Amino acid sequence: MKKEVVNIIKIGGKTIDNEEALAQFIKAFSRIQGKKILVHGGGILANQIGKKMGIKPNFHEGRRITDTETLELITMVYGGLINKKMVAKLQAHGVNAIGLSGADGNLLKAEKRAVQKINYGFAGDIQKVNKDLLVNLLSQNLTPVICPITHNGNGQLLNTNGDTIAKEIACALQSKFEVNLWLCFDKKGVMLNVNDEESIIPKLNPKTYAELLDKSLIHDGMKPKLENAFQALKSGVSIIRIGSADDIDIAIKEENTGTFICA
Amino acid sequence: MKKEVVNIIKIGGKTIDNEEALAQFIKAFSRIQGKKILVHGGGILANQIGKKMGIKPNFHEGRRITDTETLELITMVYGGLINKKMVAKLQAHGVNAIGLSGADGNLLKAEKRAVQKINYGFAGDIQKVNKDLLVNLLSQNLTPVICPITHNGNGQLLNTNGDTIAKEIACALQSKFEVNLWLCFDKKGVMLNVNDEESIIPKLNPKTYAELLDKSLIHDGMKPKLENAFQALKSGVSIIRIGSADDIDIAIKEENTGTFICA
Repeated sequence: MKKEVVNIIKIGGKTIDNEEALAQFIKAFSRIQGKKILVHGGGILANQIGKKMGIKPNFHEGRRITDTETLELITMVYGGLINKKMVAKLQAHGVNAIGLSGADGNLLKAEKRAVQKINYGFAGDIQKVNKDLLVNLLSQNLTPVICPITHNGNGQLLNTNGDTIAKEIACALQSKFEVNLWLCFDKKGVMLNVNDEESIIPKLNPKTYAELLDKSLIHDGMKPKLENAFQALKSGVSIIRIGSADDIDIAIKEENTGTFICA
Repeated sequence: MKKEVVNIIKIGGKTIDNEEALAQFIKAFSRIQGKKILVHGGGILANQIGKKMGIKPNFHEGRRITDTETLELITMVYGGLINKKMVAKLQAHGVNAIGLSGADGNLLKAEKRAVQKINYGFAGDIQKVNKDLLVNLLSQNLTPVICPITHNGNGQLLNTNGDTIAKEIACALQSKFEVNLWLCFDKKGVMLNVNDEESIIPKLNPKTYAELLDKSLIHDGMKPKLENAFQALKSGVSIIRIGSADDIDIAIKEENTGTFICA
């Protein structure tokens, strides 16, 4: 029997930061038929609000170092401001959205990352996805809108990368649904040359990816996203694509949009 | 057939502002058996964070005037920081809490208050409670934790009083459940003399309330809470009490705690 499709869309900072881009995305997302899940990242808003509050952003190799006050900041901004505004806008477009952090309904249980060379602070690595909760919410025609906050089950909230959350949810749901995972960012796909929009790679499989890695042709910033994508592929996620959030409703139906991750 | 009990507890600023009081409350709340819903207010945290951000609190007769930047502030603080921290703490105590604003799952549809003498800004008066959503979440043994933010269905978040939210939810659920509504604040009950903790009124019915109002023996600050309580009574809510959040698990079983609102 053919399984029902669930579209899981992850959007990042560039879509969230720009009010017009976000409004366009929400319209397009609302036109996607059937079951769907939205995972959102953070964007520059947390830095802007943090600046007003005297909290300095602290990054190491592009990853946020989450101290206590930064965790409070992102809990407010990601879990409150961004998530609730997005839910209200989706409701206005007829999507029965429900905003969730990983603590809500014990959706995403994580473990604080062990301190090695770098202390990332309250960074969380996902241990378990509450699949039953998602299945139940989806069956009520609710659309989960998930912010990049998890918890450790002992009362501690944690900061977890949005791409990783989208991937883990895709992996957890793939046995029950035909999962279509779309990791969106500000480019149209994975590019051979980051300065050339025409250099998008239409398809990547583990072999071609390994070859490109060998030749140092994969930009460092793309590696975590691609690692997430190939992990999803390995777990049996049906369709995985990396590309732009623009016109997502149309893009999702087209085979030649973005970079297709395949076996 | 006897209906199943749902305890609806509203806690206010004084419990939320004090870390120790909140920890005590969460422990006690987690010991309450059966279905339960927590509604929380705001507290001074929003003012403290607002101050850091250069947002001045603006009140008229004890009610917040919600301009655009204040709405963003309380969406962050109530919907994000307070709500998610509380959910994570409840999870640590074995309560499968799920944090919600009124926009989530279209839980609380409200209408922006019409401007009369005073423009309260983005203040929302509740029009509809999504009872089916609450019934479904409760049936999954989830405990809704609701922040005082609603939405108008057209993409606008609104600020709604927590007592009013608790009352509206109690009224919406009373046909399905035996609802026990507890409106908590920083006193042990409604007092005849606000300076005398011994002057708690053990029982109030519409007649005795009207008499006390006539004699100007009800403190102005208590009136909205009592109005909510009597509206719940009129709608058929089984038990309504006004009192302290301390030892709520024990208090809820005792008949002589707080002020009992009865017919």
